[in-house]
Amino acid sequence: MEAAMSRRNHKRRAHASAFSRRSLPGSAPGTLIVDPNAPKPRIHVIAYGTDKILEKDIEDVQAVRSILNQWPVTWINVAGLGDLSVVTRLGEIFNIHRLALEDVINVHQRPKVEQYKDYCYIVVRAVHDKEAYASEQVSIFLGKNFVLSFQEQISNCFDPVMVRVREGKGRTRTAGPDHLAYALVDAVIDGYFPVLERYGELVEALEDTIVIQPAARSIEQIHEMRHGLLTLRRAAWPMRETMTVLYREPIPLIDDEERIYLRDCYDHMVQIIDLLENYRDVTSGLMEVYLSSISNRTNEIMKVLTIISAIFIPLTLVAGIYGMNFKHMPELEWGYPFFVYGCMATVALIFLICFRAKGWLGSPDKSKVKPDTSRVDA
Amino acid sequence: MEAAMSRRNHKRRAHASAFSRRSLPGSAPGTLIVDPNAPKPRIHVIAYGTDKILEKDIEDVQAVRSILNQWPVTWINVAGLGDLSVVTRLGEIFNIHRLALEDVINVHQRPKVEQYKDYCYIVVRAVHDKEAYASEQVSIFLGKNFVLSFQEQISNCFDPVMVRVREGKGRTRTAGPDHLAYALVDAVIDGYFPVLERYGELVEALEDTIVIQPAARSIEQIHEMRHGLLTLRRAAWPMRETMTVLYREPIPLIDDEERIYLRDCYDHMVQIIDLLENYRDVTSGLMEVYLSSISNRTNEIMKVLTIISAIFIPLTLVAGIYGMNFKHMPELEWGYPFFVYGCMATVALIFLICFRAKGWLGSPDKSKVKPDTSRVDA
Amino acid sequence: MEAAMSRRNHKRRAHASAFSRRSLPGSAPGTLIVDPNAPKPRIHVIAYGTDKILEKDIEDVQAVRSILNQWPVTWINVAGLGDLSVVTRLGEIFNIHRLALEDVINVHQRPKVEQYKDYCYIVVRAVHDKEAYASEQVSIFLGKNFVLSFQEQISNCFDPVMVRVREGKGRTRTAGPDHLAYALVDAVIDGYFPVLERYGELVEALEDTIVIQPAARSIEQIHEMRHGLLTLRRAAWPMRETMTVLYREPIPLIDDEERIYLRDCYDHMVQIIDLLENYRDVTSGLMEVYLSSISNRTNEIMKVLTIISAIFIPLTLVAGIYGMNFKHMPELEWGYPFFVYGCMATVALIFLICFRAKGWLGSPDKSKVKPDTSRVDA
Amino acid sequence: MEAAMSRRNHKRRAHASAFSRRSLPGSAPGTLIVDPNAPKPRIHVIAYGTDKILEKDIEDVQAVRSILNQWPVTWINVAGLGDLSVVTRLGEIFNIHRLALEDVINVHQRPKVEQYKDYCYIVVRAVHDKEAYASEQVSIFLGKNFVLSFQEQISNCFDPVMVRVREGKGRTRTAGPDHLAYALVDAVIDGYFPVLERYGELVEALEDTIVIQPAARSIEQIHEMRHGLLTLRRAAWPMRETMTVLYREPIPLIDDEERIYLRDCYDHMVQIIDLLENYRDVTSGLMEVYLSSISNRTNEIMKVLTIISAIFIPLTLVAGIYGMNFKHMPELEWGYPFFVYGCMATVALIFLICFRAKGWLGSPDKSKVKPDTSRVDA
Amino acid sequence: MEAAMSRRNHKRRAHASAFSRRSLPGSAPGTLIVDPNAPKPRIHVIAYGTDKILEKDIEDVQAVRSILNQWPVTWINVAGLGDLSVVTRLGEIFNIHRLALEDVINVHQRPKVEQYKDYCYIVVRAVHDKEAYASEQVSIFLGKNFVLSFQEQISNCFDPVMVRVREGKGRTRTAGPDHLAYALVDAVIDGYFPVLERYGELVEALEDTIVIQPAARSIEQIHEMRHGLLTLRRAAWPMRETMTVLYREPIPLIDDEERIYLRDCYDHMVQIIDLLENYRDVTSGLMEVYLSSISNRTNEIMKVLTIISAIFIPLTLVAGIYGMNFKHMPELEWGYPFFVYGCMATVALIFLICFRAKGWLGSPDKSKVKPDTSRVDA
Repeated sequence: MEAAMSRRNHKRRAHASAFSRRSLPGSAPGTLIVDPNAPKPRIHVIAYGTDKILEKDIEDVQAVRSILNQWPVTWINVAGLGDLSVVTRLGEIFNIHRLALEDVINVHQRPKVEQYKDYCYIVVRAVHDKEAYASEQVSIFLGKNFVLSFQEQISNCFDPVMVRVREGKGRTRTAGPDHLAYALVDAVIDGYFPVLERYGELVEALEDTIVIQPAARSIEQIHEMRHGLLTLRRAAWPMRETMTVLYREPIPLIDDEERIYLRDCYDHMVQIIDLLENYRDVTSGLMEVYLSSISNRTNEIMKVLTIISAIFIPLTLVAGIYGMNFKHMPELEWGYPFFVYGCMATVALIFLICFRAKGWLGSPDKSKVKPDTSRVDA
Repeated sequence: MEAAMSRRNHKRRAHASAFSRRSLPGSAPGTLIVDPNAPKPRIHVIAYGTDKILEKDIEDVQAVRSILNQWPVTWINVAGLGDLSVVTRLGEIFNIHRLALEDVINVHQRPKVEQYKDYCYIVVRAVHDKEAYASEQVSIFLGKNFVLSFQEQISNCFDPVMVRVREGKGRTRTAGPDHLAYALVDAVIDGYFPVLERYGELVEALEDTIVIQPAARSIEQIHEMRHGLLTLRRAAWPMRETMTVLYREPIPLIDDEERIYLRDCYDHMVQIIDLLENYRDVTSGLMEVYLSSISNRTNEIMKVLTIISAIFIPLTLVAGIYGMNFKHMPELEWGYPFFVYGCMATVALIFLICFRAKGWLGSPDKSKVKPDTSRVDA
Repeated sequence: MEAAMSRRNHKRRAHASAFSRRSLPGSAPGTLIVDPNAPKPRIHVIAYGTDKILEKDIEDVQAVRSILNQWPVTWINVAGLGDLSVVTRLGEIFNIHRLALEDVINVHQRPKVEQYKDYCYIVVRAVHDKEAYASEQVSIFLGKNFVLSFQEQISNCFDPVMVRVREGKGRTRTAGPDHLAYALVDAVIDGYFPVLERYGELVEALEDTIVIQPAARSIEQIHEMRHGLLTLRRAAWPMRETMTVLYREPIPLIDDEERIYLRDCYDHMVQIIDLLENYRDVTSGLMEVYLSSISNRTNEIMKVLTIISAIFIPLTLVAGIYGMNFKHMPELEWGYPFFVYGCMATVALIFLICFRAKGWLGSPDKSKVKPDTSRVDA
Repeated sequence: MEAAMSRRNHKRRAHASAFSRRSLPGSAPGTLIVDPNAPKPRIHVIAYGTDKILEKDIEDVQAVRSILNQWPVTWINVAGLGDLSVVTRLGEIFNIHRLALEDVINVHQRPKVEQYKDYCYIVVRAVHDKEAYASEQVSIFLGKNFVLSFQEQISNCFDPVMVRVREGKGRTRTAGPDHLAYALVDAVIDGYFPVLERYGELVEALEDTIVIQPAARSIEQIHEMRHGLLTLRRAAWPMRETMTVLYREPIPLIDDEERIYLRDCYDHMVQIIDLLENYRDVTSGLMEVYLSSISNRTNEIMKVLTIISAIFIPLTLVAGIYGMNFKHMPELEWGYPFFVYGCMATVALIFLICFRAKGWLGSPDKSKVKPDTSRVDA
Repeated sequence: MEAAMSRRNHKRRAHASAFSRRSLPGSAPGTLIVDPNAPKPRIHVIAYGTDKILEKDIEDVQAVRSILNQWPVTWINVAGLGDLSVVTRLGEIFNIHRLALEDVINVHQRPKVEQYKDYCYIVVRAVHDKEAYASEQVSIFLGKNFVLSFQEQISNCFDPVMVRVREGKGRTRTAGPDHLAYALVDAVIDGYFPVLERYGELVEALEDTIVIQPAARSIEQIHEMRHGLLTLRRAAWPMRETMTVLYREPIPLIDDEERIYLRDCYDHMVQIIDLLENYRDVTSGLMEVYLSSISNRTNEIMKVLTIISAIFIPLTLVAGIYGMNFKHMPELEWGYPFFVYGCMATVALIFLICFRAKGWLGSPDKSKVKPDTSRVDA
């Protein structure tokens, strides 16, 4: 129980934090207030062209100014949002709207695409294998020659992209910042698959448990599962909308060639949602299977009670009758009471035969139309 | 129970009032009838330009005429709708359509935007933390150089906006009346978050109760919760539509720059609805968990009954048999009836072994496929 | 029960009549067959201009010809559809399409707007406070200088409009026939509010009953309620569509000024549907509350049975043991059997303590996590 | 049971036939294979102009060539699809696409409209009063001067149209083939009303049964009802889409005048679907009412069991105590055991009072808040 | 149980494989990794014009170059995806985009159509009669003069198309590659019908079982059925969308004449989905029927228990009373205790009469309103 409680407490904190970092009601739009528990930001800069590359961690955001505009593509990745000045000064350097900065800081945005004059602001949510309940906000600003990305947590989900940029394979180095933005979004989307895979396994484990031998905690497990799927769904559906916007609507900063890649991302999101909805349907079905198996068990218990009562209560009556203290019951003197035992056995036998005829004894699975239904699992 | 009743009575009055203030069926359109219980209006005027500001409470609405058109932006806020003449005379001053005035008075409008020739009429609903069931109608008239707002109750939900206007920070003083209207709508929307936060906590408290130890009143609590969420939802969905209209449709009085801010409001409404629907789904799930846990409990009770009956009724039969008054039962003379007690213990033991084998004894949580399912909460 | 039966019989007749008045399958389109039970028509003519008015009841429809075209607006209201010739001759005078006349007579049309060359045909459904199940068809033909309305029953739902025309207040006399048609539609829509108000009260009464002490007939009441709401819904949804068409689509006969009024009607219909759907959701929730409270009660009954059985059956066994007729039971001679009574009391006490520990005794409302959940109704 | 089985067998055959007549998977498109059980076709030709008419049954389809193009409208009706050559030769004469012919033969098409260069192909489904599960495919080819219709079965659903053509009333003879096609579609749609009327009666009968006294077979009846409504729905929804296409989309062969008539058909389909959905909702509600009344009955049974056990088991204990064979029980010698009987009566009375206080005795309908709820059925 | 387990294990493997073949998260787009268990590819080439045909199996994909462009239509069919080099080299020959090749290899795509500059990429899913859970991905590239198809497994679902091409009947040889692509899609769609037919039979078998005599495994069967239908549905819905795109959207490579054929495919998909949804609705209904029949059975069991308890427990009391050891019970000396037996018989009879009056004895099907409801199954 303690484990359950601590799990819940964890969830509660996660929930509560959904609001606590918001600025106070009625505060001016664009007011930036940073969550005190957010990790300190790490700023990593990669600037590259087709044949050269510059990569370094920086401490002072002003260092960005000297790099920007010198390279075909400059990618600044900020992991951790614990220092407001980093965000605001980057906002000044890249001339970002205050409302967009507010959305970077308030990490409970739905995935979305917003077009501003000089840049395009993309919000996506990443999920991690470890904790299904947690999803991390990733903000991507795509400009003419830069990509500015903010990760809520310090995670390694962009590492494969960095490796590809460093190695310069494929289109990664030749294409513009739009391809880099695509690569980041694709990396985030790829992170959904291991989580879904884990859910797939859990659904099957639960299916096996419930169909074969449902336990009292199964209901709790179904509930947890549904809760988790709901959370995933809340992240995944707007992700799909976002992908639709990215690959369909005319965004000047995104090349037509890139749209084919973004369509691929969209396809992946559709696949993810397909699986999610499938798991949800299966989980709903399991709830019904569970309820019916509880009812079936109540039935079984009632049958046992009824059979035992039906057999022994009448016998007790027989014994009670011959325990009466009447003076003139000549049968009491007929010798050893074999006839009473015989009578008792007969009564018990009659009831047993009745119950057998009703199908209450023996396996409950023996149905008369079995030949027909056996084809269900042929 | 009295608490429940009084709570209900409160609700009933709230419900009933939804109709009582309506004009009689068939009365002419635009007939204005004021609710006699509505609080007397307080009229507060703030007129401002970039560098100067005039703020005062007025008694006579005619005082507005002398201020209007003298300032870039004039904001008249009327809190309380208890005096019809205030509304009608303001309607004359600003040349408002009678149907719009009727909607100001009949405080059960759905949120909406209506465009008239010289002004735009926005209806939103504010919710308050104190009473989830109550939502207050706020009417905002946005004109070329004025904002006229009507609050159903005397509340302080516009206080932060007033402070911002007074302090003149950010765009508040430099921008036109459209920014002020946005700020009012934003203040109303911000008021939804604390209510949702409270619901989030209630949902989790209820979840803990029901999964761990459901009580008979849990069902009533779920019902109250659903009722409350329904009411919030009825306010929130049309709010979202209203925001969509405000930020997407071409309204001459709203500047393009302002649309970015209104899109932000729209985003907040979408977030609110996301959370609401999430809570609704979780609450529905809780209902099912609750029903299944009642069934599980019935099962447990039935098992106890069956076990006790199965053990003691046969033993009573044994005792009954040796209580029969037959003359020739030689076993009655075999000395102290250890064999009877042995026989009784054997019968009881056999039943106990049977029930253990059926898994009726011991913790009901011990399922054989546990290793598989334990991964659900890994 | 008789009341229930007669109520049902009434409904059945209503249902059956939904078909009986239809012309035979395969009959030519536009075939007019009048329901023999329909009331005889009363024809009322009001012709008016800005400053004069003519009002009279007429017997012969030909009298209409002499009035028509002499006045800015001529309104002919026919209440009751029991005389086919009235309908057909009016159809000739106003040059109405036979299919439209067929729809006037077959009083089971869905609300709709149909545009013909010279006129516009509007069908709406009126509901009455008395009988929720009944809804009355009102057909309105709007022409260049006339309004021709047909009411299925002789009702007074147009009386307030007549009064307003007579008194000539507001725009009623100065505006054209489109305003009159609007006024009629508005009067019909206003008639929905008292019915909804009654449903609101019923829902609350039912809520109180079911949450506090559900009765066996509650289920019947929920079913009746749902049935009634379904019927209202079937009338209300197409009414909304009709209002959308009237205020949005370009209908030459309807002035732009009038559209603001029609938008108001549309708003009312949306409000009505909002409330209806709300009641439906609450009623569905009540059904679940009801089912769970039945289960809870079964639980309670089972507990009583189990407690009584668990206590008394073992005691009966004890009594049975000392009723055995064994010769050598020395304890039978130990004097007054206090030890037996003590043993019985102990057994009973142990069971009572067990059940108390299980929480079966005492109020079922005492849950251990109460401090958390108490905030639900704070 | 035999009736139920044979009904089911009938259904199964119907279902199975949905596939058996399909050509083999992978066969060339337009491959025509005729169901061997289909009735032999009867070909009926009616050719007519405004003032003359030719009507005859023909055996050889080539006879059509001599009539076609000689008359303003030629209508060939083929009832029964048992002879492939009739269909293919008519296909040659009218130059019909092989895929359309395939659809004529494979009688499990959804209702649809397909436009070809020279003709328009309309598929509708007719239902018959006798067997709710069966629906018949009717194919109508509408050309410039002909209508070619194929009925799956030999039925009389087109008889009223034939009569009207013969009698030449109304527009039937003066209008073109589009009016004839409309008349055929209208005749098919009119056939839905009697079936719906029957369902309406069944729903009410079932409602009465289930609310007043649910039987075990009620569930089977609800299931049958739902099954039937599902089947009707599957036919009705695409019928509505088809009607929408026919009256809204520009089809060159259909005159604008005719669209008013087709809109009328569309209205009828919408009405039919309204009723169907209504019946479905009511039937779903009945299922819940049924389930709750079973639970209520279980409750009742449990109460009887509990009351009887609670009263008699303690009394048996009392009797058992005084049946113990203790030597020193002085009360056994107090004379006639009136005090025992008194004690028994007291125990029984106490339990009865307890149960009465719990409301388990007496009518379960007596709820304390009755005055409120009685208004539900006022 | 073992069978069930192995079936499940099979499913689990299928599920797991849905992810295992995906390239690692974050790998470059277009990275091709082949499933090591995929069968080795068999490459079959058919090149044909109106009057000549070339057909051969090839080992080396380079052999394609010599055939391509020499014939009006060249069809390369690759069955089995076990050799990456075959796919990549064909990709080079036909100049296929790497993302499309990735989709060919990752066999868990949703059906879709993607247009590239020189070709059109169609993904469909084929189902097989043997295993409802498995669906196979078929990728079709349609170019100006070629069709390139990839089958996930080595199956014979394209055999009928090959035969038709060889025999050269109908349009198959005269039409272009678009007709061939249509023929392949049609062959895939035709494969759904036998699977649906099998489901239709299973649904009916299950219906018979559950309505007549539900077994405990019925619930498992319903769950399996739902699972299978969900899987089919996940394949079928995007197939429908794909067909809509193919027949409606302007794709330069597809001839207008071909669109009529593709519309036919679309019709078939709509029919398939209609049936699927129908089965789903029926299966949901069966779940409710099942639950209610379990409740009904619990009722029956409870009745038996209650009747037996109600009759025998009071009789035991009577016997117990006359077994009391009171000295002064003169009735004990009235001779043979006929009056006791009479009294017992009377008590039993009274209870039997009560239960009969309650309708608990005799067939539970005897409802009083039977004449009305009997029409349900008329």
